[in-house]
Amino acid sequence: MNESGFACPLPLRQYASILLAHGGGGQLSQDLIRHLFLPNFENPLLAPMHDGALLEIDGTKLAFTTDSYVVSPLFFPGGDIGALAVNGTVNDLAVCGAKPLYLSCAFILEEGLKIETLSQIALSVRQAAQEAGVLLVTGDTKVVEKGKGDGLFLNTSGIGIIQRPMRPAQVKPGDAILVSGSLGDHGVAILSVREGLEFEGTMKSDTANLYPLVESLMNNCTELHCMRDPTRGGLASTLNEISASAGVGMVIEEKAIPVRPEVQGACEILGLDPLYVANEGKLVAFVATQEAEKVLAALRAHPLGKAAAIIGHVTQENAGLVVMRTAVGGERIVEMMSGEQLPRIC
Amino acid sequence: MNESGFACPLPLRQYASILLAHGGGGQLSQDLIRHLFLPNFENPLLAPMHDGALLEIDGTKLAFTTDSYVVSPLFFPGGDIGALAVNGTVNDLAVCGAKPLYLSCAFILEEGLKIETLSQIALSVRQAAQEAGVLLVTGDTKVVEKGKGDGLFLNTSGIGIIQRPMRPAQVKPGDAILVSGSLGDHGVAILSVREGLEFEGTMKSDTANLYPLVESLMNNCTELHCMRDPTRGGLASTLNEISASAGVGMVIEEKAIPVRPEVQGACEILGLDPLYVANEGKLVAFVATQEAEKVLAALRAHPLGKAAAIIGHVTQENAGLVVMRTAVGGERIVEMMSGEQLPRIC
Repeated sequence: MNESGFACPLPLRQYASILLAHGGGGQLSQDLIRHLFLPNFENPLLAPMHDGALLEIDGTKLAFTTDSYVVSPLFFPGGDIGALAVNGTVNDLAVCGAKPLYLSCAFILEEGLKIETLSQIALSVRQAAQEAGVLLVTGDTKVVEKGKGDGLFLNTSGIGIIQRPMRPAQVKPGDAILVSGSLGDHGVAILSVREGLEFEGTMKSDTANLYPLVESLMNNCTELHCMRDPTRGGLASTLNEISASAGVGMVIEEKAIPVRPEVQGACEILGLDPLYVANEGKLVAFVATQEAEKVLAALRAHPLGKAAAIIGHVTQENAGLVVMRTAVGGERIVEMMSGEQLPRIC
Repeated sequence: MNESGFACPLPLRQYASILLAHGGGGQLSQDLIRHLFLPNFENPLLAPMHDGALLEIDGTKLAFTTDSYVVSPLFFPGGDIGALAVNGTVNDLAVCGAKPLYLSCAFILEEGLKIETLSQIALSVRQAAQEAGVLLVTGDTKVVEKGKGDGLFLNTSGIGIIQRPMRPAQVKPGDAILVSGSLGDHGVAILSVREGLEFEGTMKSDTANLYPLVESLMNNCTELHCMRDPTRGGLASTLNEISASAGVGMVIEEKAIPVRPEVQGACEILGLDPLYVANEGKLVAFVATQEAEKVLAALRAHPLGKAAAIIGHVTQENAGLVVMRTAVGGERIVEMMSGEQLPRIC
């Protein structure tokens, strides 16, 4: 490997080329952001490294976010790329504490894609947008030659109006950590259809609009400090990101983390850890401990939060570390995802 | 071709699959928008079919736009995909009459892309954003397997604050039509490097931030009715789109349309019509005729507008048609681009 003339900062030098794991939401994604993008793009609005930016324009407080969707296959149990692209971006606005209002929608199509496929996905985008109460207001379509894309990629960017600004830096020692439901459903559903696996039970993506759940949290909790949807890299990567951003430690209880038995079983067969598997309709919330039970009840009162649980708490010590008390009574450090469990998940 | 179960409206039925021309900015792009996207996504904010949406949130008037960039090659004379992605989205905000403020930046990387290449493009994004005075506030990175992408695709979405809302519907019979400079430079530059052609003279993309020019127009013209940057599909497609949206006719003078002799020569050799070739740093403006000369002087006073010209006027008759008085004294209808002149141009 000839690295002469290669000007990247040190932590990227071990890789001369992009790997799938650079898009996985784990350690290599973080490296790319911290050592390649941030040195170029750093500014106070980007610095909080949240799921979206908090802006103030002429006195109006907005959230702004973007995501490209490259999920393969385009259709999967429980959803498709269209629903995912709407819900994913709506959720990134919601976890900023914003009411989602407007989306853009930009398609990159591969020559030869069936018009019928595009039509189905457009319909799915429409339905998901209607359900989420957002308007698609601007769009773009590009076409690349056959063999230079993969059917269809879709970018949605979104604008929402801030109800209560959420930032990782607001997470405090003592906060309770809640999740809104069972983990790993989306990733396992994608993998099972991609690999043609037939597991018992129903493996279905959990893709959903989380704003109603967020609204209920904001109405029922005065000390709601931060929210995040644990997508790529799963719960483990999300907790690590926030513990690093907020400069706090976290302790979670393995026994308290909801994972459906079918998903647990599938993960065991596939050699996956559900803590690292992507979710597309789950929320992690950090709330003052005295409000934890009330918030849990509010989450459980909503169909999307029936399996909600308090899974741990934030600590002053061990800043930047997430520690799990295991089911058998030990302790282990839950690290940021280091490789790529499952590419093209969203 | 078995079309059973194929539910698309009639005008798309002749194509069962996506062609390159569906992304070319001409007639097939329009068909896709009108017959597939609009029936799903139609709403009053999307309906004006401008380069961006005009929104009002909590009393603040904003423009919001999105574009994906898939240009091939990534680097070309006069720019690269990074500069193009910033300038293109900044320009879409500018022609809405908005001051560009914030951009998102979403990369779709192909496994195996050199980190050094990504680094160069990130630097170019940074420089173009600094020059345009916009902040990159949110981003995303996805990676697809080798052979499922083409190095790097880049989506930028942008938010600007409206200074003076511009809509195609404001174009009126009698308006003068101005262009800010010579046509076809971007497309011919891309083609010459892609095909390894060596033309005499310098073929260079005109990619540029047009906001300074727009600002000068807004300051020097009280009856500025509409602006547009004629990118994919060239001037011909832009004029056709606006004449259809505004329900007016247009007459343009071939002799008045600025095209650099080298570009004209290259187009003749390549069998291209410069009216249909993409530009990335040119503006078309529709202004009340009594202000045309003043606006022309304002454009020419700016380095980006040195070759500006009044090229025609808007008519009541022939609604939806663009007629060109040719250099030899005849008249011909300038149609919307019907095929694909040049794919992957932006």
